[in-house]
Amino acid sequence: MKVAIWGVTGYTGSELVRYLVRHPEAEIELLTSESSAGRKFSDVFPSFRGTIDIELVHPSELESPEVDVVFCCRGHTEAMDVVPGLLEKGVKVVDLSADFRMRSGKEYERWYGVKHRAEELLGEAAYGLPEVYRGKIKGARLVANPGCYPTAVALSLAPLLEEGLVDPEGIVVDAKSGVSGAGRRPSLKTHFVEVYGDVCPYNPGRSHRHTGEMEQVLSELVGRPVRITFVPHLIPVDRGILSAAYVKLTEDISTDELLGIYEKRYAGEPFVRVREDLPHTKDVWGTNFCDVSVRRVEGTEVAVAFAAIDNLGKGASGQAVQNMNLMFGMDETLGLR
Amino acid sequence: MKVAIWGVTGYTGSELVRYLVRHPEAEIELLTSESSAGRKFSDVFPSFRGTIDIELVHPSELESPEVDVVFCCRGHTEAMDVVPGLLEKGVKVVDLSADFRMRSGKEYERWYGVKHRAEELLGEAAYGLPEVYRGKIKGARLVANPGCYPTAVALSLAPLLEEGLVDPEGIVVDAKSGVSGAGRRPSLKTHFVEVYGDVCPYNPGRSHRHTGEMEQVLSELVGRPVRITFVPHLIPVDRGILSAAYVKLTEDISTDELLGIYEKRYAGEPFVRVREDLPHTKDVWGTNFCDVSVRRVEGTEVAVAFAAIDNLGKGASGQAVQNMNLMFGMDETLGLR
Amino acid sequence: MKVAIWGVTGYTGSELVRYLVRHPEAEIELLTSESSAGRKFSDVFPSFRGTIDIELVHPSELESPEVDVVFCCRGHTEAMDVVPGLLEKGVKVVDLSADFRMRSGKEYERWYGVKHRAEELLGEAAYGLPEVYRGKIKGARLVANPGCYPTAVALSLAPLLEEGLVDPEGIVVDAKSGVSGAGRRPSLKTHFVEVYGDVCPYNPGRSHRHTGEMEQVLSELVGRPVRITFVPHLIPVDRGILSAAYVKLTEDISTDELLGIYEKRYAGEPFVRVREDLPHTKDVWGTNFCDVSVRRVEGTEVAVAFAAIDNLGKGASGQAVQNMNLMFGMDETLGLR
Amino acid sequence: MKVAIWGVTGYTGSELVRYLVRHPEAEIELLTSESSAGRKFSDVFPSFRGTIDIELVHPSELESPEVDVVFCCRGHTEAMDVVPGLLEKGVKVVDLSADFRMRSGKEYERWYGVKHRAEELLGEAAYGLPEVYRGKIKGARLVANPGCYPTAVALSLAPLLEEGLVDPEGIVVDAKSGVSGAGRRPSLKTHFVEVYGDVCPYNPGRSHRHTGEMEQVLSELVGRPVRITFVPHLIPVDRGILSAAYVKLTEDISTDELLGIYEKRYAGEPFVRVREDLPHTKDVWGTNFCDVSVRRVEGTEVAVAFAAIDNLGKGASGQAVQNMNLMFGMDETLGLR
Repeated sequence: MKVAIWGVTGYTGSELVRYLVRHPEAEIELLTSESSAGRKFSDVFPSFRGTIDIELVHPSELESPEVDVVFCCRGHTEAMDVVPGLLEKGVKVVDLSADFRMRSGKEYERWYGVKHRAEELLGEAAYGLPEVYRGKIKGARLVANPGCYPTAVALSLAPLLEEGLVDPEGIVVDAKSGVSGAGRRPSLKTHFVEVYGDVCPYNPGRSHRHTGEMEQVLSELVGRPVRITFVPHLIPVDRGILSAAYVKLTEDISTDELLGIYEKRYAGEPFVRVREDLPHTKDVWGTNFCDVSVRRVEGTEVAVAFAAIDNLGKGASGQAVQNMNLMFGMDETLGLR
Repeated sequence: MKVAIWGVTGYTGSELVRYLVRHPEAEIELLTSESSAGRKFSDVFPSFRGTIDIELVHPSELESPEVDVVFCCRGHTEAMDVVPGLLEKGVKVVDLSADFRMRSGKEYERWYGVKHRAEELLGEAAYGLPEVYRGKIKGARLVANPGCYPTAVALSLAPLLEEGLVDPEGIVVDAKSGVSGAGRRPSLKTHFVEVYGDVCPYNPGRSHRHTGEMEQVLSELVGRPVRITFVPHLIPVDRGILSAAYVKLTEDISTDELLGIYEKRYAGEPFVRVREDLPHTKDVWGTNFCDVSVRRVEGTEVAVAFAAIDNLGKGASGQAVQNMNLMFGMDETLGLR
Repeated sequence: MKVAIWGVTGYTGSELVRYLVRHPEAEIELLTSESSAGRKFSDVFPSFRGTIDIELVHPSELESPEVDVVFCCRGHTEAMDVVPGLLEKGVKVVDLSADFRMRSGKEYERWYGVKHRAEELLGEAAYGLPEVYRGKIKGARLVANPGCYPTAVALSLAPLLEEGLVDPEGIVVDAKSGVSGAGRRPSLKTHFVEVYGDVCPYNPGRSHRHTGEMEQVLSELVGRPVRITFVPHLIPVDRGILSAAYVKLTEDISTDELLGIYEKRYAGEPFVRVREDLPHTKDVWGTNFCDVSVRRVEGTEVAVAFAAIDNLGKGASGQAVQNMNLMFGMDETLGLR
Repeated sequence: MKVAIWGVTGYTGSELVRYLVRHPEAEIELLTSESSAGRKFSDVFPSFRGTIDIELVHPSELESPEVDVVFCCRGHTEAMDVVPGLLEKGVKVVDLSADFRMRSGKEYERWYGVKHRAEELLGEAAYGLPEVYRGKIKGARLVANPGCYPTAVALSLAPLLEEGLVDPEGIVVDAKSGVSGAGRRPSLKTHFVEVYGDVCPYNPGRSHRHTGEMEQVLSELVGRPVRITFVPHLIPVDRGILSAAYVKLTEDISTDELLGIYEKRYAGEPFVRVREDLPHTKDVWGTNFCDVSVRRVEGTEVAVAFAAIDNLGKGASGQAVQNMNLMFGMDETLGLR
């Protein structure tokens, strides 16, 4: 299976390469970069020297791609102009941008401030969270790879929501993320000296764009519209998301019972690990695992659901490979263990 | 004014020294250490060389202290055996342990698992949060210096609670702390390699001991019993607490109005800074400041109140000096600017 | 091939597991731990959950080992009591301790302060630096896996020393190491808050024990006794060694010529990468690579040779697997790419 | 005494403010910023809120400055166009750029690649290392504040060089620096995710511009031209320089004797602390101290001299204040303790 990555010089692109070089069925055919075309991939990312040294090409090479699948690692509003052409040429697409995650152009416009230019594909695109939408992903030409926060939060809450154990009103999500989530473009906000030793919230309330995506997937899990409070925080580490979701229970149920529900829900899942103790981002660093746990808060009606992922693993590139595996009918874990 | 510190070789003790050497009215008379008696303070903490080089003495020297005030920097269950004797000798005490923070022996026993051995002082002890209890602190012989988390959370919520704007049910507090809050005793949990790059929750729900203290002060602010959900997280930085408190509003009120209430509430306070943007722990590093902010979450009934403190500053030693200043009728800011 | 690890709960042991689970020919049969026997390996190291969950056994199980090779991950002075028995039983051994690295009992005693109790094996043991001693390793029953600093320094200097380009007098080695090199046992020196943000030298001059090992391998490379100055530094990262070796050249030779010599020397080596730019520890993190480079210092007779390794990779467990591969006649790179 | 800072929105500028607000004799009159003129200083640096909130003005305001001294915190090649005008107006200047550090225009051009445009001032400018050039600084109108590396290295070697104990050939300096030394302008090299967890050399040999400055001051200390090898390294911490200087001794002298020489040399110096143990950058963080130590390397002719400074303290802004104090005949330690 021949693979291309459109926009490989960011963190999700290079992390995809890291997974794909270990993948027994995938062959990296084409890596594009606008700014570094002509340079070797391993000159831009020296850790890959001796592992993969192919030359980066200009994105225009994607116009007649001789590959089976393209991973789109460019920002939102760019993918929607390119993806339709790729699909027409019979190439499958895993889009890591936000362009095909929302169910409707209206919702997309609400959260991204731009009119969608390939609205007709929104219905077709599968939302690439295999633990919830595996069936649709398997038959898809186009998978919208989920955002990092929505992945963590949806996996931490799915067992509770599916069982109808949660009052859909008043869900609070407090998440902590490493800095690679902000991308590879330098800015004062991601300048080493500014970030070092600092902890801060950003885009609190319902102002972060992932809010819409999270509400969409939670609503589908619960079967009715859900509105949440979401506060992400920036933490001075390179990778990792730790999310805590606070919900009001509709039944009196213990931590042990809740853990039992989680164990059952995720029994067959290769990448979700239910922990009796608590998740640590370090335990999922560099992997496609999502570690989840849950606690009933004694003396209250509240439960807290935790998830830890690598924002570049299960939160982006690892999950993208999982989706590719599903789309092509391969073992879901290839390249990911 | 002559000062002693009981148990100076931990982080709160050495940070107290840092504040006191700059204090124009305080003279450090006695620094005790069980393990390092006989060594110079600056041999244990070389950053103080040339600044304060006095010799550490054994705690038994405190039996006939020729000082005006003793700061107790030993753990809980130790202070309650020593503080009564100090007060009898006419020495004032700022206790940085938890021993005199709870209003009743029953509550103390509930959270600390030990019967209180100086229960008669619990009524007398002032809870050392000047922004709320300044009057009582001024006349006190004994001040119970608050825990780091309760300080941050109480200051972030006080304006809302005092104005009756919050439904006391269902308050959720999600806090992030640097590692110095766990003390200076080595353990695998605080081993550099284990902590580095990791983010994790600990003692979630209502299992952290600060929960009781927090509920006590929030209940007093709101005028009726409050039960909260509290989840602290460990963050790989040395110092700093960032707390986010999620509350349900009882009125429809905007972020701007909320910020106005905060500005008014803290107008005269030298150490609370209301930020229109969001607090960063780095901005309060090494200081006695508490930076607070608040946001109404659009489309919901929720407000989020943030606070950032240095857990060794406003969360411990800085606030201890502020309390000492008040107890002795001095300018509250001496040594702290 | 069946494998046992003696003392798996330290960092070199768990890193060995990480490499071995990816190794197509190796099967982990036995993991020992004195303190955690009876617990699952993945309970001690939760990142391995779902990957390897076998139970830890007491080291006494090694008395009749049904394995082909044992990796010894216990400290020096322990291995020399156990290794002879293992060899007698026909088991091959890769010893990650220092016990079999020195050529003579006298040298061992000089640097480790203890009389050697299996001196007869010192001549037999192969020093496990494949790029220099590959031949001997291939036939060995016992490989002494090199220390992290000697590995980096020997690989950075070998091309120069072998070509006779260096005055053996006055070699200076300045090295920087992450904290995992100090092991997993908690202490104040490795306490997060103490290490965070700090840079410091330790054991300077010729007082670090790796000095003897380094002088031994450099002497063998140069063909006469070499005495060096060695100053290691502790850097607040988890992993990684960056060494800079300063030597006086015996010929007038340019940086380009030097790089050419390095390229030629390491042309066939799968794990040494010569960089025209400069090595970064991050580029070798989690790998068995050693990145080297060299510079002639303009206007002087000095050259500087750099190396970057992961102290747990090429500096310990990665190299141990490379040695095992060689000892068993397998492809040297198995499990390491 | 009225003070202006030209270019206050970098790290040396804001650190100067931190020292000056504590200075009993200095009053901050004017803070300039090209990019942020019109904003409050404390809006750019929120940690200063409530401490100093004055408005930033455009640099053109410096044309008729009503101040006694100007600190120049702009880059090299900029200061030389502005300083002459300031001096003419009777204002004293502490220049933190490199523009007036070299003794001759020729040397300046060699290291900075630009012809000097105020060469006539190079002879007049005092090199602001008080421990070596205190006399000249006291009478100076213009002080060239030293670079961070030269400060550390000169102070670590001065006692040895002044006593004639060092062979001036073959001095090797290996230094490690935190990232704030690279300034506040975002770039990929200082992007958090790139720097985090990485250790690397940069500008090795004699290619770093501080080499020329270092050679100049070492030559003056030793009384004849000195050529050194200098390799700086980037370390993932915000602040701090740790330098190790390797020299060949001309006499057989022990570590204890060397330490005695250091103690004597620095006996009266308020900001140099001789340590029998080894320097740590953390012990000088946020201060104007320089901690030094020295070791004879057993069995060789080599000595190693260490220094630790805060690159923004003794390495820049702290030393600048020390120089100002001397220029105005004040107690050298004002504002710095």
